[in-house]
Amino acid sequence: MIARDPSSRARAGLLYTPHGIVETPAFMPVGTSASVKAMTQEQLEEIGVGMLLANTYHLYLRPGHETIRALGGLHRFMSWPRPILTDSGGFQVMSLKGLGRVTEDGVWFRSHLDGSPHFLSPEKAMEIQLALGADILMILDECVEYPSSYETTRRAMQLTGRWARRAKDYYDGELARIEDSRGSGFGVRGSQKEGTGVGGLEDEDEKLETPNSKLEAGRPKFEAGDSLRTPNPEPRIPTLFGIVQGGVDKSLRRESAAEMVEIGFQGYALGGLSVGEPKSETYDVVESTAELLPPDRPRYLMGVGTPEDLVECAARGIDMMDCVMPTRNARNGTVFTSEGKVVVKNARYARDDGPLDPACGCSVCRRYSRSYIRHLFVAGEMLAAILATHHNLYFYLDTMRKIRHAIRSGDYNKLWSRVRAAP
Amino acid sequence: MIARDPSSRARAGLLYTPHGIVETPAFMPVGTSASVKAMTQEQLEEIGVGMLLANTYHLYLRPGHETIRALGGLHRFMSWPRPILTDSGGFQVMSLKGLGRVTEDGVWFRSHLDGSPHFLSPEKAMEIQLALGADILMILDECVEYPSSYETTRRAMQLTGRWARRAKDYYDGELARIEDSRGSGFGVRGSQKEGTGVGGLEDEDEKLETPNSKLEAGRPKFEAGDSLRTPNPEPRIPTLFGIVQGGVDKSLRRESAAEMVEIGFQGYALGGLSVGEPKSETYDVVESTAELLPPDRPRYLMGVGTPEDLVECAARGIDMMDCVMPTRNARNGTVFTSEGKVVVKNARYARDDGPLDPACGCSVCRRYSRSYIRHLFVAGEMLAAILATHHNLYFYLDTMRKIRHAIRSGDYNKLWSRVRAAP
Repeated sequence: MIARDPSSRARAGLLYTPHGIVETPAFMPVGTSASVKAMTQEQLEEIGVGMLLANTYHLYLRPGHETIRALGGLHRFMSWPRPILTDSGGFQVMSLKGLGRVTEDGVWFRSHLDGSPHFLSPEKAMEIQLALGADILMILDECVEYPSSYETTRRAMQLTGRWARRAKDYYDGELARIEDSRGSGFGVRGSQKEGTGVGGLEDEDEKLETPNSKLEAGRPKFEAGDSLRTPNPEPRIPTLFGIVQGGVDKSLRRESAAEMVEIGFQGYALGGLSVGEPKSETYDVVESTAELLPPDRPRYLMGVGTPEDLVECAARGIDMMDCVMPTRNARNGTVFTSEGKVVVKNARYARDDGPLDPACGCSVCRRYSRSYIRHLFVAGEMLAAILATHHNLYFYLDTMRKIRHAIRSGDYNKLWSRVRAAP
Repeated sequence: MIARDPSSRARAGLLYTPHGIVETPAFMPVGTSASVKAMTQEQLEEIGVGMLLANTYHLYLRPGHETIRALGGLHRFMSWPRPILTDSGGFQVMSLKGLGRVTEDGVWFRSHLDGSPHFLSPEKAMEIQLALGADILMILDECVEYPSSYETTRRAMQLTGRWARRAKDYYDGELARIEDSRGSGFGVRGSQKEGTGVGGLEDEDEKLETPNSKLEAGRPKFEAGDSLRTPNPEPRIPTLFGIVQGGVDKSLRRESAAEMVEIGFQGYALGGLSVGEPKSETYDVVESTAELLPPDRPRYLMGVGTPEDLVECAARGIDMMDCVMPTRNARNGTVFTSEGKVVVKNARYARDDGPLDPACGCSVCRRYSRSYIRHLFVAGEMLAAILATHHNLYFYLDTMRKIRHAIRSGDYNKLWSRVRAAP
């Protein structure tokens, strides 16, 4: 670990993956169909994106995982050199109301594109993600809507547990097969269990201070003296994350967490949150569930959230988050700023020649005005979405930089209070 | 003039404007509503755009020229530091079939946005363009469709002549007013007639060779030793261009050219071409009309054309061109390459991991594959249009760089033959 904040459960670390190291807490922009909407990969690099999320469901249907495998994997296909996390596809499948049916074996669904029938099992979800060549793979889980009955939530949580074992077995088998075929040239034989983790978190008491200068850059930089202790600082194999379910019921969450830890994953996600429950419930479940997970393994809160959520959930020990909010809101004309949300397409900005956010240092705020961006929205110009997305993602990534900086400086509480005091 | 090709009428020059110098022959991307669709201004700078075209009609309706004036003019509004040419709005108004009505005074039309009635006169077109703060203004003209009768073509050509005088009078009056209000601090008093021109073209026999190194960069670079002879190398005032009409009738074109030259403009455009006539007619009219125009004034061929047209028309003495083709085709999934047009959204490119154009050095071709861009089109991702537009504009600008280089090297004929030999 790089640092642990004394006043909260927030922690800063380094996540090792086949495509490089990611500073945590990290926010992952969503690149559903192998593209973060309205952004070029150059722009994503420029604003310091450490890791992307891509959707298995969408890529499986189009262009197909076999096509991507044939083209050298997702990184090469989309020309993205940094880490990628793929979800399992389960969430999307279950969002297709009326188009999906869950069985013990897996889930039947119809494509939203052409209605064709498909079957996704825990094993198939692994097979697809391995074909895509992601750095972090997610097990197939069943995510229930909010509110759901205790019985429904428990059944889905238990099914997720059984699927988790199958996913893990398939993953272990595939890795063994890959290792056998690579022979001794494969440098990390037998290390898959200890593979990727949050850097150095195995030593609960160790706290390394690093100079602030290293925290500013978008890409992690390391120096020889950093003494980062990880089981395997350069894994060449993808990492598998389990997913804790159980809705907002703490006993079910406890049961699910215990089962996932017993199966043993390299990282643990919190699924089934931010699906409509009150925010206080989200924070409660995040806090109590995070405590149940091994401190030396990364914790990923799926599908969260607002800029405030980033600060609140990092304070509860979360290392990774993703959300479509910054990109989707941008396309709808809403931008996040240091002064709160701004609906830039509103008429009141027609002659406002200030930047989207006076406190922001992004290239959009340095060059373009609210009046211009408002005009672009009204005129239906693509550049509207391009500029608003660029700013919003920069704002999210900058919030993460501030979070990491505050943790490493030991004054997370100040940042946290500011967020809580905001209107 | 920098150079004149011995084997054709092609010429290379420098166009001085209030926002800098443009190397000619120049291609101007079209930024209809103060945005070149799918491109950021940073990307336009990166690929070496020298001058943009913006549409007066669209900006007048939305956000309105008074709004843009209040925000400091078009350059500041859209954050574009390099030159901008605005059309007069006439072409768009007359394209609104059934929505416009031409009178001696001007043209009545209804907004395509809300049906509201508007009137555009030669004076009003000047007023709007001056409010926008463009570097090069175009007179209001009447452009007829192809084919049109001799009578219709002549009537429109003659009306354009009368409108041209009114535009020039208004422009002269406004400039005098501006100069008066600025007093002696205004550095170019009385120079509007001699203002902007193609650099040094007043000396027909002079031919300056410049080192090739200076031709490569997107932005013009000049050294003290260049001895560029222009009447006014640093004009602070916008330039007014006349427009020669007359359809494909050479006698009408001759009459129109004579009238425009008699009125006296700082540059001359050829309007009413590329509206459906056979390509050989376009080239014929361009060649014969260009001959009638003063050699020391820039010649602008409006709305042309394909990459081949650029080479063919530069060979006939054209200095400036604009067209929506590279941007519009890009959004439809068609890209221009050294091997001809490629419809990249076709299924045949689904597993083609080569670049759009193997001979292209643009950042899209250096990073992304046909298979990826094809996928983006099929998936409806905005990045498809972004990447294809970027490449197409680069291809056009690169063609212009090759044209300028060939002229200055004295081997334009080689380039021209290659284009003619292409399939």
